[in-house]
Amino acid sequence: MQEFLRLASRLADEARVIVKQYYRQNLDVISKDDASPVTIADRGVESRLRYIIEKERPEDGVFGEEFGIKDSKNGLSWVIDPIDGTKSFIIGRPTFGTLIALCKDGVPILGVIDQPISGERWMGAEGLPTTFNGHPVKTRPCASVAEAVSGSTTPAMYSETGPKYQVFEDQGKAMIWGGDCYMYGLLACGWMDIIIEASLKPYDFAAVVPVVQGAGGLMTDWQGKALTLESSGEILACGDRSLHEAALKLIA
Amino acid sequence: MQEFLRLASRLADEARVIVKQYYRQNLDVISKDDASPVTIADRGVESRLRYIIEKERPEDGVFGEEFGIKDSKNGLSWVIDPIDGTKSFIIGRPTFGTLIALCKDGVPILGVIDQPISGERWMGAEGLPTTFNGHPVKTRPCASVAEAVSGSTTPAMYSETGPKYQVFEDQGKAMIWGGDCYMYGLLACGWMDIIIEASLKPYDFAAVVPVVQGAGGLMTDWQGKALTLESSGEILACGDRSLHEAALKLIA
Repeated sequence: MQEFLRLASRLADEARVIVKQYYRQNLDVISKDDASPVTIADRGVESRLRYIIEKERPEDGVFGEEFGIKDSKNGLSWVIDPIDGTKSFIIGRPTFGTLIALCKDGVPILGVIDQPISGERWMGAEGLPTTFNGHPVKTRPCASVAEAVSGSTTPAMYSETGPKYQVFEDQGKAMIWGGDCYMYGLLACGWMDIIIEASLKPYDFAAVVPVVQGAGGLMTDWQGKALTLESSGEILACGDRSLHEAALKLIA
Repeated sequence: MQEFLRLASRLADEARVIVKQYYRQNLDVISKDDASPVTIADRGVESRLRYIIEKERPEDGVFGEEFGIKDSKNGLSWVIDPIDGTKSFIIGRPTFGTLIALCKDGVPILGVIDQPISGERWMGAEGLPTTFNGHPVKTRPCASVAEAVSGSTTPAMYSETGPKYQVFEDQGKAMIWGGDCYMYGLLACGWMDIIIEASLKPYDFAAVVPVVQGAGGLMTDWQGKALTLESSGEILACGDRSLHEAALKLIA
């Protein structure tokens, strides 16, 4: 696992360099074709990371948004989202992040959430404590939904499921929007309690699972099932594992 | 005006020192009474800023959330919100800000948006170009709502007005949540186009008006009227002044 963590860390370092070049830049200056800065940055990072993975671990699979799937020969696959939170990226708000996961047979076993601008990095791996900039972090206890500070990215996520977040807004302490992956890092640090989201893609959540769970939290789909690359993208993460069941019932 | 800007800048510096002490701190450690860290920080900043204003400009009024109104003897009043975006503050997300405005007969003529953690500061004043960390900034052109990237803080703001933001979500390019005051700074820099909000208090918007307008934008209430301390708290800010009228019509 230490070898994988070192490689994941190196991949995040490389992504940082590229992402920073496109952050808060004038679209006209850098875009010579029809692509937006975020698309150019996305592609640049993904190809660079694919190149490194191919060189270092040719048997591993790769799954990214821009360039699709390279099959794995050993059950291990890297799942990459160069810029999770593209809307935050385009307005120059440093709550987007680079997500890098390693999955074994479709189950996330290692994850990195990296914020390139603030230089904040969360790393989680099965069997190891989650770290924030190298220091171990823990989620906080939260006995009930009434005490919980919750978060989500946008109400538009729930167009197909109905506003399942509403119960946390109504019954909880606070509901905070505009989350992106950054919010899962804040949950891992024990600064918030519940994150609910819908319509996520595997590369939006794979890296987040080991970060949340390595910090003591629990993150599943809305049926309480463990998340894999096959999951539906309806997500519930709780810092306090004992809160998770109550939260699940409220959604159902 | 330069004298006012110097004082506003000093006030923001002082606020930064205090706010940073309470950011991402364990509640149990710093809270010996029933107050939350954000309330303690709020009060600490407001009393410090009131003390400095009293000493430097004893005739000026002061209006803050925690300690109410000190009447002005010369028509000038400082309007202070030590932590705008308290929910972002409590989860450790650096999109909250310290807001400091100077109003003349209730009309904002100078404003500061300060983000203490990232060290980002926007300053605006009547007749002067808005600056971001000391450099002049401008809003960007945006011809139509269809091209516009919009933002707001939370759908819960619209409980009394109905979801007036919806039209920008449906017809625009993107709608981004979790704004707080930081978003107005991003608009002033030309990275987004429209901000719509409701249920704001005077100390939530007074400082923002000179920042947006000094960068070339237009910021009014939902009737298109200039904002004063008497305004209702329903806000529309557009980076492109020519977009503002179309946006107003869509709200109405």
